[in-house]
Amino acid sequence: MAETQLLDIKEIVRDSFDEQEVEQLGVKLSQLEPEEIAVALEAMPLEQRISTWQSLHPDEQIHALSYMRDDARENIFKQLEAPELSVLVERMDVDDLIEMLDELPAAVYQEACSKLDATDKEWLATALAYTDEQCGRYADHDVLTIRNNAKIRDAIRLFKKLNEDAEYHDALMVVDRTGRYVGMLLSISLLGQPSHLPIVEFIDDEAPIVDGEMDLDQGSDIVARSGYTALAVIDEEGKLLGRLSIGEALENVRRSLESQFMHTAGLDETEDLFAPVMNSAKRRAVWLGINLLTAFLASWTIGLFEATLQQVVALAVLMPIVASMGGIAGSQTLTLIIRGLALGQITPQTYWTLLRKELGVGLINGVLWAAVIAVVTYFWFNDLIIGTVIGLAIVINILVAAASGVVIPVLLEKVKIDPALSGSVILTTITDVIGFFVFLGLGSLLLLP
Amino acid sequence: MAETQLLDIKEIVRDSFDEQEVEQLGVKLSQLEPEEIAVALEAMPLEQRISTWQSLHPDEQIHALSYMRDDARENIFKQLEAPELSVLVERMDVDDLIEMLDELPAAVYQEACSKLDATDKEWLATALAYTDEQCGRYADHDVLTIRNNAKIRDAIRLFKKLNEDAEYHDALMVVDRTGRYVGMLLSISLLGQPSHLPIVEFIDDEAPIVDGEMDLDQGSDIVARSGYTALAVIDEEGKLLGRLSIGEALENVRRSLESQFMHTAGLDETEDLFAPVMNSAKRRAVWLGINLLTAFLASWTIGLFEATLQQVVALAVLMPIVASMGGIAGSQTLTLIIRGLALGQITPQTYWTLLRKELGVGLINGVLWAAVIAVVTYFWFNDLIIGTVIGLAIVINILVAAASGVVIPVLLEKVKIDPALSGSVILTTITDVIGFFVFLGLGSLLLLP
Repeated sequence: MAETQLLDIKEIVRDSFDEQEVEQLGVKLSQLEPEEIAVALEAMPLEQRISTWQSLHPDEQIHALSYMRDDARENIFKQLEAPELSVLVERMDVDDLIEMLDELPAAVYQEACSKLDATDKEWLATALAYTDEQCGRYADHDVLTIRNNAKIRDAIRLFKKLNEDAEYHDALMVVDRTGRYVGMLLSISLLGQPSHLPIVEFIDDEAPIVDGEMDLDQGSDIVARSGYTALAVIDEEGKLLGRLSIGEALENVRRSLESQFMHTAGLDETEDLFAPVMNSAKRRAVWLGINLLTAFLASWTIGLFEATLQQVVALAVLMPIVASMGGIAGSQTLTLIIRGLALGQITPQTYWTLLRKELGVGLINGVLWAAVIAVVTYFWFNDLIIGTVIGLAIVINILVAAASGVVIPVLLEKVKIDPALSGSVILTTITDVIGFFVFLGLGSLLLLP
Repeated sequence: MAETQLLDIKEIVRDSFDEQEVEQLGVKLSQLEPEEIAVALEAMPLEQRISTWQSLHPDEQIHALSYMRDDARENIFKQLEAPELSVLVERMDVDDLIEMLDELPAAVYQEACSKLDATDKEWLATALAYTDEQCGRYADHDVLTIRNNAKIRDAIRLFKKLNEDAEYHDALMVVDRTGRYVGMLLSISLLGQPSHLPIVEFIDDEAPIVDGEMDLDQGSDIVARSGYTALAVIDEEGKLLGRLSIGEALENVRRSLESQFMHTAGLDETEDLFAPVMNSAKRRAVWLGINLLTAFLASWTIGLFEATLQQVVALAVLMPIVASMGGIAGSQTLTLIIRGLALGQITPQTYWTLLRKELGVGLINGVLWAAVIAVVTYFWFNDLIIGTVIGLAIVINILVAAASGVVIPVLLEKVKIDPALSGSVILTTITDVIGFFVFLGLGSLLLLP
């Protein structure tokens, strides 16, 4: 039985810090799946990462790299000398080169490409004709194809040639004379069949097909739902480009959801846990700068009411409550809608139902918490009007937040801006500015003599 | 070729609102995979959802339910009359019953269980002996098992019995006389082999095994990385409980990441887009209440400096900038660490490296943006000391935020509290309170006469 369950990432990382253990680390790691090695390498600071990675067999090195995040992988490449990198890249196959295109130094990449044979050069050109968000770019060329006029014995011969590490290869892709995809040939359908029969009557032509121009997320969903372990990826003429397996689909689903999560904090999904400080600082600075603009806008709103604040300092004390309740309520709605958009569940027919529902939820919670806050405030400052002012401001701000939580992400998606990335900044700006304006405005009206 | 690519969820939802189309909706839907039907049903308000769901064939109804989120599913059950529900539940198999246990009314569930045959009752009892976070609970009983003394022809006969909808069944699970799991029998390994041979020499005993007590996330990861389409789930005695397929693993990975995303807003992963207003309001109220406590804490901090604010109202105007910059910087670190924790990538050996790195990033961005803010503030209020005060407060607050972003989630995980859910509230409380205290405290020291 395999040992995967017993060796965990924490143990591997611990060993990488221990001089006595580090020698055997290569042996231990080679018992793991490349996905696991990649996760373990990403969990190490750069120094340990490079020495651990170097303890791997060259083929394992490449495998692990192909499963790592872009940034973590680039941070390995950067620590290699040019000759070392060249030797490594020469061992890569064309799928690896496509995957690592953006992280490899241009010169190294060009050199490796020039050494490819004609078939591989053609694969490469075909893949690069698609964008890095399309299925065509990532179609796996490690695909077993068979002509539709072949016999069962040919198919069996192909299956027998599969190497031990091959994953999700329980079917052959059937093509016609011109390379057009015809269907799949499942290993199960051939069991117990006489080997001289033509395969044609065993072809499964019911399997969904992935279009090369399809978005990678959509293609991955189709594979995931199809129940097949891999589907054919075809070009516009119906020619087989390669395949998209359930393993890759799972990886894509994971990355896409992880990036949604990371985007809410203005981070990129590829961000390396142990990126050099300067790189990290640079990337995050932009997000802080954008948020600073919105904070200045909020401050400017408050500045409009300087005179009021000077006379009723309690308003200054209570400001964060108004802003915070609006922000939290709004982000609940926003998060729900962003998930819905990602799943394709938000449709024109249901906008109004959603808006009404979220406004309803906002009204109930707005009134409930406004009452609580008004009472607490009354006892705190012993002033009924301040209680009324903050209560009203809370209700209004939570309603505005609910509406914004629905409208902002829907509009952002319409103009093709990622709502997970920009939604929360815009929402917070609105709830801050409106919250402060309503609260201090009402305060000026009702509290000033 | 299947039509999955052509019928999208938006079209289905549109049709459900159109009286002329709704009649044919059942036919259209039955061309889809049950996963897709589930996503489409979740995208509909309750009225359309129930009528669309009722247009499905009873078996499809159950399939779709089994792929829906708990809440969305419960909202269908709630709209059914008792007799209708009983008829439906009687058609469910034991795996469906286990899956829907929490959403079915207790009486209906008990009745259905009492009608199960002895084998199914045993499955049920075994599954319920595990918690709802363990693999044993969800082990799929739709598994093809074969005794280790069987012949190839027996195996082929079993494979031939597979029905067309069966997914990820390219291997049989081999058990010994006592029901203990021995290994897997891959269909590919049997191709072209004489049918009278015993299977024993073809058994694959290298495949990883999933322990029934293992956490569902961990089990799913093992399946995903194994390269097999399904792995055996065994009990503590090594007996086969069922299997965990790559399809289920993908679904679990998706749900687990979605719940991480939803938790950042205090929402539950199962939250239905069209939940009744009152239900939604109730669930979200708690989160707003918790956040209100932290907002009051921030206000109380400001309240300590009422006298200062009265004299230097500019401080009140600038407060949101200090709080906001700290909150944003902290949530960047927090998000990165939460992802790392979820992947098991944060280890005792690397705590300090991470803390140092994040403090380094915080120092660079703190100094950079503090300078910008100080300059802007100087020109706004024409006061060098206010510029200095806010600059210092920003640097300190961003450093505190960076440290909190590392320490809080690590501590929360240690005490088994979900950092995705609680991390951001605690972090915001700290950055608000410290931010206001440092800013207004420095202001009191340097600006008051």
